[in-house]
Amino acid sequence: MTEQPVIILVDPQLGENIGMVARAMLNCGLTELRIVRPRDGWPSQAAIDASAGAVEVIDGVTLYETTLDAVADLNRVYATTGRPRGMVTRIVTPRHGAEEMRREIADGTKVGILFGGERSGLNNDDVALADAVIEVPLNPDFKSLNLAQAVLLVSYEWRMSQDATLGERLETNESEPASKAELDNFMTRLADGLDKGGFFKSPAMRPGVLRNIRNLFKRGQPTEQEIRTLHGIIVALQKAGKKN
Amino acid sequence: MTEQPVIILVDPQLGENIGMVARAMLNCGLTELRIVRPRDGWPSQAAIDASAGAVEVIDGVTLYETTLDAVADLNRVYATTGRPRGMVTRIVTPRHGAEEMRREIADGTKVGILFGGERSGLNNDDVALADAVIEVPLNPDFKSLNLAQAVLLVSYEWRMSQDATLGERLETNESEPASKAELDNFMTRLADGLDKGGFFKSPAMRPGVLRNIRNLFKRGQPTEQEIRTLHGIIVALQKAGKKN
Repeated sequence: MTEQPVIILVDPQLGENIGMVARAMLNCGLTELRIVRPRDGWPSQAAIDASAGAVEVIDGVTLYETTLDAVADLNRVYATTGRPRGMVTRIVTPRHGAEEMRREIADGTKVGILFGGERSGLNNDDVALADAVIEVPLNPDFKSLNLAQAVLLVSYEWRMSQDATLGERLETNESEPASKAELDNFMTRLADGLDKGGFFKSPAMRPGVLRNIRNLFKRGQPTEQEIRTLHGIIVALQKAGKKN
Repeated sequence: MTEQPVIILVDPQLGENIGMVARAMLNCGLTELRIVRPRDGWPSQAAIDASAGAVEVIDGVTLYETTLDAVADLNRVYATTGRPRGMVTRIVTPRHGAEEMRREIADGTKVGILFGGERSGLNNDDVALADAVIEVPLNPDFKSLNLAQAVLLVSYEWRMSQDATLGERLETNESEPASKAELDNFMTRLADGLDKGGFFKSPAMRPGVLRNIRNLFKRGQPTEQEIRTLHGIIVALQKAGKKN
């Protein structure tokens, strides 16, 4: 049972930085760390050395081949990024995000936070998997944080939000929020229908358009029930076409 | 004239850590750094390398022989520490401290924040020079922060106290949010397709189901561009059905 957000590092490079991330997490009471494709391999002595004894976090690390695998069992995902992506995305500060996560986790939602690697951060496909973007409101002329510091600020706000007051919640009417895998499954089926219907004018634009469509559905935070409804809509529209 | 708190490092050891402090400061818009007895000397190439281009801070560093010298011109001093000192001292969180500093600085008070070296933090004489202690409310079982991270958290709270920074916004990538009429228009067309495709098991449930579908799309706060995309999706799915 996860009662705290999961930290997910995508394509991190140096073991030392992973160790510093583990330390920053444990400073703030977070313990669940997932890593997608660590460049320098895992386990890592450099990570252990830099973790200042955050053994609990280091020993519990789980590895994933893809970002999608790493978030598949989660209901709600945040992506941290410092640069605009030209996507229609809800952007929150770490403080606002932490308050949201408190409410979500109290409702039994499984939450994860994506952090990109040292070189260039998250790619657009990773960001598209997330429900919202976390942006730290730093000095606009000098806002590049190192990986461990980004994790620290977000984890710190999580810790500080411990007793934040309820301001907003989503009434889900007894249906659970859909998992990322359920949303992905729907998107695959939709993409298939769109391919058959000649929706994409050129193959080149296909990935970007699909990403935008995913963003729209994701923003609605569909429940499991709603995902079933969306599948039904695809079936019905295709039947309607047949009759014409 | 100082309109922001001065960061003061007492007995820092590694130039690399000083560089990371400079970076964390500038991330948060702070530029005035004072150093008392840097062990490895000053200027420091290691500091420059680790500062990620925070030249403005590095170039402005001033050096002092004693902590007292470094705070002599200030009116109000905070000391950061993670362990109790057996002194009667007012202790504030970084957040509370930042709000205090805003008020003090607005009144023309000159404020500084002391940070101890990597090895053992501030000594008791240094702490005794301060008006209040800043303690970050971290995991009590694992609360040792490295120097740059301590500076980052305190500087971050200074920055966050600037204004009621907008907690949340929607990046819409130049497309306007759709009007209610545009959404309604889409819903009408979708309902028509669903009717043709035999989506509704009974006429009685039709209004309620349509309302639920509308809620899902509404929650996503679609833009005008996205509503056009949704129309395109209906067309494409119907075409796909025709081909089967």
